[in-house]
Amino acid sequence: MTHPRPSPSLAPSSRTRVRRLPDRAHYDFDTVAAVVDASRLCTIAFAWNGSVHALPTAHWRDGDHLYIHGARASRMLQALVQDECCVSVARVDGLVFARSAFHHSMNYRSAVIYGRFEAVEDAAAKEAALRAFIERLAPGRWTQLRPVSAKEVHATTVLRLPLAEASVKIRDWGVKDDAEDMDWPVWAGVVPLDVVTGPPQTDPASVVGAAPAVPA
Amino acid sequence: MTHPRPSPSLAPSSRTRVRRLPDRAHYDFDTVAAVVDASRLCTIAFAWNGSVHALPTAHWRDGDHLYIHGARASRMLQALVQDECCVSVARVDGLVFARSAFHHSMNYRSAVIYGRFEAVEDAAAKEAALRAFIERLAPGRWTQLRPVSAKEVHATTVLRLPLAEASVKIRDWGVKDDAEDMDWPVWAGVVPLDVVTGPPQTDPASVVGAAPAVPA
Repeated sequence: MTHPRPSPSLAPSSRTRVRRLPDRAHYDFDTVAAVVDASRLCTIAFAWNGSVHALPTAHWRDGDHLYIHGARASRMLQALVQDECCVSVARVDGLVFARSAFHHSMNYRSAVIYGRFEAVEDAAAKEAALRAFIERLAPGRWTQLRPVSAKEVHATTVLRLPLAEASVKIRDWGVKDDAEDMDWPVWAGVVPLDVVTGPPQTDPASVVGAAPAVPA
Repeated sequence: MTHPRPSPSLAPSSRTRVRRLPDRAHYDFDTVAAVVDASRLCTIAFAWNGSVHALPTAHWRDGDHLYIHGARASRMLQALVQDECCVSVARVDGLVFARSAFHHSMNYRSAVIYGRFEAVEDAAAKEAALRAFIERLAPGRWTQLRPVSAKEVHATTVLRLPLAEASVKIRDWGVKDDAEDMDWPVWAGVVPLDVVTGPPQTDPASVVGAAPAVPA
């Protein structure tokens, strides 16, 4: 599942070629993978039952695929393997304050992936995928947990989408103002935004002595 | 544009009624508005040119509408006023570590809105909308900026979508494990996640003395 190095370019399709602000575009696999890895939530756009839907859901990556999971009974997940969809993974990294309203902007990393999800049907492959999800959240945790049951694996749908028809847009620089505005008397710059973890909140129902380690 | 109080319930449509985990569902306007306000980025799902697309973009709210903006030349924005779409606004508030893999979860706030965007055509209304966007980022900033020009307003498309056919899902509680797993010897609890601002990075091209105040 590991990807060959150096990172190959993903030839842009008519759907992934960035037309607006193409200087922000990237088409190499490693950049796509890094942006996918930088967020815990993706949004899936798909058509179903006569409407277009936007479904936010947790995702993870293993090698060349983006994975999602959910309840076997979910009609939306069942719909996803029937047709193509488009997945967005995006995060804001900063607010860009310019001297004119027009040049205000955001720094961001955004990946878009087109394709059709396939179901991971084999129970062992499904369990391996769920293990990768847990291990991404907290390395080493999988073997500490109450082992997963066959019934739980059966009740869980795991879908995966190849990171093939994909592109990335990144803005990661400072303020761009019009030359004639540079001495306008207002603060200009970037206010970075980041996601941080707060103090872990131990389950109050924990048995004393049963909490060996908080996940890193 | 302010909404009457108390917050009215938005009658769930067949598209917004939450079927999976309905105990997490909310249909009142104030909750929808609060979830929309809690994120700076939305993702718009829409059909165009034979495919479904997921477009992440900055949004803001003014009263009963969600607003977006972009370049007048954007073909995607032009497509949005032609047909219905679905907008997702979602953020992760915490990682929920259970004693079994199956009960791991996330705390989150997620709004979904269906409808068709309409263009804000009138120049004064468009400028007022852009002002609301800037003021939301940094209250008081609009009047400090180099005034917006008619050409800039003309070059900007502003679209708005009513927060009418909308629903919210929220998970904001702790660990739910199976009763027989409660003494399994692994840490269980919630690790909160939050978005924080870092130290402001003043534009190195700033004229000395031209930086009266960093936005709060």
